[in-house]
Amino acid sequence: MAEYVLPLQELIDAFRKLPGIGSKTAARLAFSVLNFTDEDARAFADAILNAKSNLHTCPVCCNLSVDGLCSVCRDDGRDQSLVCVVENSRDVMAFERIREYRGTYHVLGGVLSPMHGIGPEQLHLKELFARLRDDTVKEVLIATNPTVEGEATASYLAKMLKPFGVEVSRLAYGLPVGGDLEYADEVTLHRAIEGRRPIY
Amino acid sequence: MAEYVLPLQELIDAFRKLPGIGSKTAARLAFSVLNFTDEDARAFADAILNAKSNLHTCPVCCNLSVDGLCSVCRDDGRDQSLVCVVENSRDVMAFERIREYRGTYHVLGGVLSPMHGIGPEQLHLKELFARLRDDTVKEVLIATNPTVEGEATASYLAKMLKPFGVEVSRLAYGLPVGGDLEYADEVTLHRAIEGRRPIY
Repeated sequence: MAEYVLPLQELIDAFRKLPGIGSKTAARLAFSVLNFTDEDARAFADAILNAKSNLHTCPVCCNLSVDGLCSVCRDDGRDQSLVCVVENSRDVMAFERIREYRGTYHVLGGVLSPMHGIGPEQLHLKELFARLRDDTVKEVLIATNPTVEGEATASYLAKMLKPFGVEVSRLAYGLPVGGDLEYADEVTLHRAIEGRRPIY
Repeated sequence: MAEYVLPLQELIDAFRKLPGIGSKTAARLAFSVLNFTDEDARAFADAILNAKSNLHTCPVCCNLSVDGLCSVCRDDGRDQSLVCVVENSRDVMAFERIREYRGTYHVLGGVLSPMHGIGPEQLHLKELFARLRDDTVKEVLIATNPTVEGEATASYLAKMLKPFGVEVSRLAYGLPVGGDLEYADEVTLHRAIEGRRPIY
């Protein structure tokens, strides 16, 4: 395939390293960068380097943090007795967006996936267990994704958490709000029946 | 909406400035950059700055070039008597990919679009007319896109080129190869009939 002039081709190749970006999209994005103002291009390059060098993980919950504790762990208004265990920092943001959850988080940094060589030692489990040593935490809400790997991780975690004597819960399964019964898959519908609740 | 930690949010905002990238995609891309190696992140940032500062337009055809003439204008094997007029550098690459076209190009840098405030003075027309002063160029092939604006630009160009006494041609309209008659739109089918050719 014919190649673009070198500086452009290098930029296209850089964009192609991003997930879900093919060669046509990469070319489109690279050309749009050429139309950026010099300041915008400089800001883009700086943002990449800053994000890469200035972000660390919170020593308590392993969420992303600029330095020391993350904003949730630093917040006195948070209920320290409830820990929501999620796969990654994006899931933390999903919870923060609903503005209702007032507990803390623990970011695993992935899920168990033998296929990808990710076992318990690759996840931030040691840090989670360390938080359970004193009696502050009363409940651990496991909020891994409702996928095969998320489920396996939840089961594994539930077993590991038993000796600590904390309450262990899992997010509810059921119909998504605004969904359509007709299009619900069998497993979800089955779980919705299992998890049915009395209405008053 | 809850915000990510600052360096991450700035990177997300930078990605959002790219065309067709919404907030969810921007977050996904920004997180993937965090998983880059330091070298890859540095290479990405450098590629942005390099592309921005090292690319110029070819003084003859206005295509992208690192310095001086672009690779096509510098190539002695190219037929200097045929100029293909395209909207942008991506269109040049579309022609180069077929490896059959041996003429030169002229990049307009856009199409006439009064809605977006783009008139003839915003396009690289002066440079095109300058190339027609001596008798080197015999034919101008207008290859703007088959859109309303591309058509308007082609008509305008054809009119402007008349006094120069060069042959002016336009890309053929018709059915795309591998297409399906059933799904061809009326205008395309009409043009395919108009442009029908004898088979031997």
